[in-house]
This record gives sequence, C-alpha cells and structure tokens, in this order.
Amino acid sequence: MARVSQAHLDARRRQILDAAALCFARNGFHATSMQDVLKEADLSAGAVYRYFAGKDELIAAIVSEVLGEVRAAFEAAAEQSPPPPPDRLVPAVLDRTLGLRESLTVDGVPAFPRLVVQVWSEIPRNDTLADVLREGYTVVRAAWARIVEAHQAAGTMRSDVPPDHVARTMIATVLGFIAQQSLFGPASVDVLRDGLRALMSMPGTDPGT
Amino acid sequence: MARVSQAHLDARRRQILDAAALCFARNGFHATSMQDVLKEADLSAGAVYRYFAGKDELIAAIVSEVLGEVRAAFEAAAEQSPPPPPDRLVPAVLDRTLGLRESLTVDGVPAFPRLVVQVWSEIPRNDTLADVLREGYTVVRAAWARIVEAHQAAGTMRSDVPPDHVARTMIATVLGFIAQQSLFGPASVDVLRDGLRALMSMPGTDPGT
Repeated sequence: MARVSQAHLDARRRQILDAAALCFARNGFHATSMQDVLKEADLSAGAVYRYFAGKDELIAAIVSEVLGEVRAAFEAAAEQSPPPPPDRLVPAVLDRTLGLRESLTVDGVPAFPRLVVQVWSEIPRNDTLADVLREGYTVVRAAWARIVEAHQAAGTMRSDVPPDHVARTMIATVLGFIAQQSLFGPASVDVLRDGLRALMSMPGTDPGT
Repeated sequence: MARVSQAHLDARRRQILDAAALCFARNGFHATSMQDVLKEADLSAGAVYRYFAGKDELIAAIVSEVLGEVRAAFEAAAEQSPPPPPDRLVPAVLDRTLGLRESLTVDGVPAFPRLVVQVWSEIPRNDTLADVLREGYTVVRAAWARIVEAHQAAGTMRSDVPPDHVARTMIATVLGFIAQQSLFGPASVDVLRDGLRALMSMPGTDPGT
C-alpha cells in the first residue's frame, strides 16, 4: 500500500479548512452542517472525519491558523528597529491577514471578513473558541504594547499614556476595518493608512484633559 | 373604555424592544423565537404582535433606534466650532452609544456590544437589515467627513488625505472597540481616548510615502 505523503495530507487538510471557511462565511456556523462542508470540499465523510471530528474542531483550526499569521506579522514588525509607525504597521498587518485566503470568495467578495464576523458572533456560545480567541488577543495586545513602548522610549510618542491603551486602540482599528469590509464590501488598506496618518498630523492634547 | 395613553404605548414598545435585544444578544437572531421574546417581555402574543409582526421588524427597529442615536451624537458634535478633536469626539460618541441601553445585561455584562455583533453576523442573510445599516453608515461617514474637512480647513490636520478615509478609520476604531467589548468584556472609553491621543502625539509621515 502506497504511503500517503505529508504534502498530500496537508493539501487535503487545506481543502477541508477552506471549504469549511466558505460555508461558515456564507451561512454562519449554526446553519452550516458537516454535510455542507463535505459537499463544498467534494470529499467523503470518511476523508473529512479523518482530520476533524466536527464543526467545533474545524472552526478552532481556522481561528488558530489566522491568529498564528497575525502573530507572525507582529513578530516580523517587532524585529525592526526603530519599530514601524502605526500608519505603516497597521496596514501591513491587515494586508497580510486579509491576503491569507484572498482566493476564497462568497457572493463575489472575499470570504475572510465575513468569516471573522461569524466567528465573533459564535463566541458567547462557544467557550473553547472564546479561549482560543482570548489567548490570541492577549498575545497580540502584548506585542503591540511592546512596539508602543519602543516608540515612547524613542520619544516618537507621548509617554504619559498606558501602552496597553494604545495597543487596544490599534487592535480596535483593525477589527473595525474588518467589520466594515464584512458589512459594506472590500476596501483598500490604504484607507486605514491615510486615516492614521491624518491623526498623526494633528496637534497633541494637553496632558490631564 | 379607557383611552390608552401614548406614554403607555411607548413604554410597552420599549419593553418589547428591550426584551428582544436581550434575547438576540444572548442567543443570536436565528436561535431566538418570537416565543422567547414574549417570555422575556412577560407579555402575551397579542400584546407583542400589536407592535411588531416578527423578528425582522424587531431587529430593524432596534438598529434604527441605535443609528438615530449615533446620528444625533454627530449632529451635536458638528455644531461645535472648532469641531472637537478625535480624542474627544470618538469617546463621546461611543460613550453615548454604549450608554443607550446600559441597564440591559447578559451574563452580567452589558448586552449592547454582543447585540451589535449579532446584528453584523445577520447582515449577509438579511437584505432589509443590510439596507438599514448601509444607510446609517453612509450618513455617519458623511458627518465624520465634514468634521475632518473642518479640521483640515482650520489647519489642525494635514489636508492631503481624503476626508472619507479618515472618516472610515474613525468609524473602524469605534466598531472595533465595540467588537472587543463583545468578545473580551467591558472597557472604559478612556482606553480609546488615550490611544487616539498617543497617535496624535506622533511625528507626521512625509507625503507620498
């Protein structure tokens, strides 16, 4: 019996995850059945269940993969000295994340932003998924905070603001831009770059006001 | 027969909308039945159906109400001259919006952020709701753009950036902060104020880079 190559296993896993991502983005997690995923992947139940026991494992794998990519984008940024300013870093991280599964489309638009919102809507009812997301958020928040601290140490950002607050604001910008794409269609990350640049050009506010 | 006062009708309507908001925030739109809403409101079917024909009308009414509040917050801001800087305006609008139904809680946390994410997840499958949200987004985007133009005219923001891009970035920040609250729990709007202030303290980027 021929040995199945790792490349084949990986490709099959990819095929299943992409099919599941499309189904979840299109119909949401609840309205999607494993049967829908099999049909979308054009695979038998045996072929799919060999990799994933059910929808919960599928969504957890998809979320872990995306968080891994976001983490890698931040690690690459944190290696730069001085760290990139927000108007470069935010679009770069977002572009890398949105580019992840650019070929997956639903109703003619990228599936990824819709998938993200479907995952968010599932969180209050899915503790495992909530834990995965919370862990990823903690890591990304800490990575952002380190970049903020580097800016404050370099004197390129006021130092009387908690780095974590800036981290949360930057993450909010990214999440909200993804939400906008999910709701109102694709947009270039240049929009966000321009917006951050405009903010950075404004006069500062007096401390304590 | 006693005439039913407008105040009574309004209070009843409020009671139904709040009950529906709680149900949607807790279980999502799909998993909520009209029966759940009746039970949460502690009203008879006759009492509820007199106001709303079904779930679609309930969610549309909730969304319209929130958008109306956001619009009012912007109109109040736009009347100020010079317009408030983003580190004041964004937290003010957000605070007013989050404060809307502060008394409604689910699992011990405010229901509103979760409700917002549930609405977002429903958009790809609900054209009526999508239209309501898109119209609200268009109005808010235009209101933000006018505030940005006022800053640019006053010389407090670089003028080589399209106002609409700044508007979309500011809206992204608000939406993403609401998403964070839905996913990871309540947070003060001061977080966002600090983050925006920190951005405003950074050196500008050269045009064209």
